[in-house]
Amino acid sequence: MNRIQQETDLPERVKIVEVGPRDGLQNESATVPLEVKVGLIERLGAAGLPAIETGSFVSPKWVPQMADSDRVYGAIRKRAGVGYPVLVPNSRGLAGALKAGVQEVAVFAAASESFTRKNINSTIDESLERYRSVVAEALDSGLRVRGYVSCVLGCPYEGAITPDAVARVAGQLDSMGCYEISLGDTIGAGTPRDARDMIRVVSERIPVQRLAAHFHDTYGQGLANVLAVLQEGVSVVDGSVSGLGGCPYAKGATGNLATEDLLYMLDGMGIKTGVDMGRLLDAGRFICEHLGRRPVSRVGQARWVRKD
Amino acid sequence: MNRIQQETDLPERVKIVEVGPRDGLQNESATVPLEVKVGLIERLGAAGLPAIETGSFVSPKWVPQMADSDRVYGAIRKRAGVGYPVLVPNSRGLAGALKAGVQEVAVFAAASESFTRKNINSTIDESLERYRSVVAEALDSGLRVRGYVSCVLGCPYEGAITPDAVARVAGQLDSMGCYEISLGDTIGAGTPRDARDMIRVVSERIPVQRLAAHFHDTYGQGLANVLAVLQEGVSVVDGSVSGLGGCPYAKGATGNLATEDLLYMLDGMGIKTGVDMGRLLDAGRFICEHLGRRPVSRVGQARWVRKD
Repeated sequence: MNRIQQETDLPERVKIVEVGPRDGLQNESATVPLEVKVGLIERLGAAGLPAIETGSFVSPKWVPQMADSDRVYGAIRKRAGVGYPVLVPNSRGLAGALKAGVQEVAVFAAASESFTRKNINSTIDESLERYRSVVAEALDSGLRVRGYVSCVLGCPYEGAITPDAVARVAGQLDSMGCYEISLGDTIGAGTPRDARDMIRVVSERIPVQRLAAHFHDTYGQGLANVLAVLQEGVSVVDGSVSGLGGCPYAKGATGNLATEDLLYMLDGMGIKTGVDMGRLLDAGRFICEHLGRRPVSRVGQARWVRKD
Repeated sequence: MNRIQQETDLPERVKIVEVGPRDGLQNESATVPLEVKVGLIERLGAAGLPAIETGSFVSPKWVPQMADSDRVYGAIRKRAGVGYPVLVPNSRGLAGALKAGVQEVAVFAAASESFTRKNINSTIDESLERYRSVVAEALDSGLRVRGYVSCVLGCPYEGAITPDAVARVAGQLDSMGCYEISLGDTIGAGTPRDARDMIRVVSERIPVQRLAAHFHDTYGQGLANVLAVLQEGVSVVDGSVSGLGGCPYAKGATGNLATEDLLYMLDGMGIKTGVDMGRLLDAGRFICEHLGRRPVSRVGQARWVRKD
């Protein structure tokens, strides 16, 4: 069916959650030095981003790119009103995050049994059980907790994922006390109808105001999917500056939606974000120059062409 | 305002008009030999595209890349039910097209006075007057005529363009007897709200079934804009295989929307096109290998990554 019945209102304001310094850099082949990570995060803060994913407290054996997250968090100048969440996979990670003095953490579940098995060698329910105690401890320590659900529009191992499977996992994270659930199309395979249908089912269980959309541009669908879910009332969208983690020319590209392209659309539609495009482009140029590549964002490329 | 009031139906079927061999190759720096153009057009036909813009009968002084359009048209095997339009700027171009035996031509107007002045050194009304006689002669000769309006969401010289200006030019082309009017965001600056508003105004004058959307991905907005106008009832969309003419790394990139990314969205939404993705990707690889670059389409990049 090709029907799109939807809200007639788009949100007047959208909160952009910048995931480049963690989700992005974690998926880049080059390991980035501490001072460059700090420089990137501070430029993103200067651009007006209200939330910047700063690092991950996981075993360096798993994710060497994030081994210095405690020092990165310690080094950045925290801006009032800006959230600097870090990923914590378990209680050990949470302990490290608490030691580093973080005020917000994120837990990362998946809507796919196969993905969960391959990723952390457990079932979805086992992973949720572990997160339940981690989230409870974080909340007891006065932290805010963001929840992630990956593979919401498809799984690299088992293919199709039902909206009900997404709603079940998202509902569990919600019941644990996560203030916001980010729904991620990890493989970027979804199209606007899938995205809309998924949001409709999940928002039957969780108020749409507490849902975030996390789309990838692997197949070029990221912004169209964002438009479709904005039309469903979603008002929080994740982006990765310059498409960090999504270099289309890198093997295993994840194709993160570039924050610049997202902001261009929101600006053009008169949707407030508080983010300054010029400063965002500066942040993108800063990290891309370090990585020795051109920005993946179309806006960044266009500006680059214009300056030529 | 952020309202999107729209049709609750998306079209069940979309006609994709492939503009790569003309609009695309005309904007590539490399000049492509006859046999490669023919090979590309035949592969696009094999992929099931119902309309393929084949060439341009303009002075070789202006557009050397299209100097062999008569021989290209003569060399391609014409498929039943497939349109092979060629661009004609004036009666001399039409004479050449008729001599070559073409059955469909296209005329190219703009909604911007500055663009028209810089492009063909005349006013919009002067250009329309010239097209009126060209279109009349083409119709008398039994040809079908497609109309283009460029700069519909902005002009590189004068900036904003009003939907009324677009509607006026489109209405003139419609009154001349063009069977379809393609509305082009030449600089790719538009966002979904602009695209929707423009289509609403133009469709007050011309039935939406006769309107085509031609978006560029210069700022990454192409597919989101397509979604917005599909929601308004548009069912004809132009695409350029592998984003030909829109290499984001080329100076003066036009950022044509890649047909592969468009098809991926339409396929994913269950909208019929009759186009085969595998064969379309073959056509894209064929021309990109000749041009010595990777496909600009995200889908093409993803496949390329996967095969690595």
